[in-house]
Amino acid sequence: MELITSAANRYVKLARSLQDRSWRAKKGLYLIEGVHLLEEALQAAASLEVVLHSPRIFNNPRGEKLVAGLQRAGYQCLAVTEELMAGISSTMTPPGIVAIAPRRERSLPDLLAVARPQPTSPLLMIAAGIQDPGNLGTIWRTALGAGATGLILTRGSVDPYNPKVVRAAMGATFRLPVAGGIEPALLARELRGAGLPLVVADVGAPLTLWQADLRPPLALVVGSENHGPGPELLAAATARVGIPLVGPVDSLNAAVAAALLLYEALRQRQGT
Amino acid sequence: MELITSAANRYVKLARSLQDRSWRAKKGLYLIEGVHLLEEALQAAASLEVVLHSPRIFNNPRGEKLVAGLQRAGYQCLAVTEELMAGISSTMTPPGIVAIAPRRERSLPDLLAVARPQPTSPLLMIAAGIQDPGNLGTIWRTALGAGATGLILTRGSVDPYNPKVVRAAMGATFRLPVAGGIEPALLARELRGAGLPLVVADVGAPLTLWQADLRPPLALVVGSENHGPGPELLAAATARVGIPLVGPVDSLNAAVAAALLLYEALRQRQGT
Repeated sequence: MELITSAANRYVKLARSLQDRSWRAKKGLYLIEGVHLLEEALQAAASLEVVLHSPRIFNNPRGEKLVAGLQRAGYQCLAVTEELMAGISSTMTPPGIVAIAPRRERSLPDLLAVARPQPTSPLLMIAAGIQDPGNLGTIWRTALGAGATGLILTRGSVDPYNPKVVRAAMGATFRLPVAGGIEPALLARELRGAGLPLVVADVGAPLTLWQADLRPPLALVVGSENHGPGPELLAAATARVGIPLVGPVDSLNAAVAAALLLYEALRQRQGT
Repeated sequence: MELITSAANRYVKLARSLQDRSWRAKKGLYLIEGVHLLEEALQAAASLEVVLHSPRIFNNPRGEKLVAGLQRAGYQCLAVTEELMAGISSTMTPPGIVAIAPRRERSLPDLLAVARPQPTSPLLMIAAGIQDPGNLGTIWRTALGAGATGLILTRGSVDPYNPKVVRAAMGATFRLPVAGGIEPALLARELRGAGLPLVVADVGAPLTLWQADLRPPLALVVGSENHGPGPELLAAATARVGIPLVGPVDSLNAAVAAALLLYEALRQRQGT
């Protein structure tokens, strides 16, 4: 096995640059870090440009099995020194394995088309201006678990391929399609054109999520904790629904609010 | 206004030491950081040893109003230099205001007693071995919003007065009582003694949260994502309930799982 030892190696340089949002956008690539996420990527047959691992990945059976599996599946795997790995990773404890992967953002029309032919009723999750990467990743993961058919991010949201978003999404990145950077006004128009109702979480709404009918095909909107869903989506809302707060709390965490809406839709759709 | 300029000042030294878990335990104190949290503390009439602020807090009307309010309410407020403030805070952007406050952990019998005389049916949230401070803070905040009557942490959980927990709890720290460091076996015994059913979130459970009856007084348990609720609480469970996963996801974020259980209990209790 050949070992890459130079920081000037093109893959090492490329991987390191992908910690930066503007480079991820320019190159159309992102970084997947760690054993668990790469197990998920392998299982989902995600497309990967190259896998970089340090020699110590073979010290544990799970790492060894992962690299063998990736090689068997035809992915290019290269060994780099521990020092180079530490320089690539965004985490304090270098993961021992990372991959460079192509971003897979879809267009809005794509995502609306994806939403249609599902066996279950379409359910789009719209994250409006969410800035916290952990929250966005958690929303992605929960949306996949609850059977959503796609995730849409409005302009000004955190990059869906930010390493912290990818980490919190726990593999949902490879499975639930995303469209990013969408203008709210355009989004409202396209949803109306597609005949998809827009249900917006709004603290002050008189209707609770339990009173709203979430069984038909629809798009759910959760905004950021500081700025809410924004004027365009609020104005275009077919329904505004509130989550009851019985204790002295101003609002809920955005990922919690999204989860409550997604799972209320699933509960109603399953007829329980 | 006198300005503290020395890092040897006893409040400055004390505040800085409270970033450390063992010092928080030894002194029985913790740190509250930032304008928003101190607004919440003031509103909740939380007990505070001393408030430290930098001179620039008066540069914005909200900060000025806060300090005036704290002084009017009889709290001791001291000014420190920007440099000292930067050394105290755990955040990259020093908040301009912090307070040293006494920890307010309750005993388990206290918390069980608190649970009883509520007008609504008692609802205890048990976080079993949660390590992530953001998740624990979010659980605390959501539990308060959903009308829970107390929060119990098992031994091995993150310190409830960790600055990141306090930040994510968004003021719930001052309002929803907590008991920390409880042995799971003791907890199971005491809950049985108090006649409180134990409903445990468990991925493999045949019963869903929507099928379980969550209206009676009860305690909900959510475990850590890596280790689950642990053998003692699983064995003592009156009911094990699962959250359906219809997409290819192994589990949900712990704060999301807790929120889904808490709000399902509230939905059933409100009869919707």
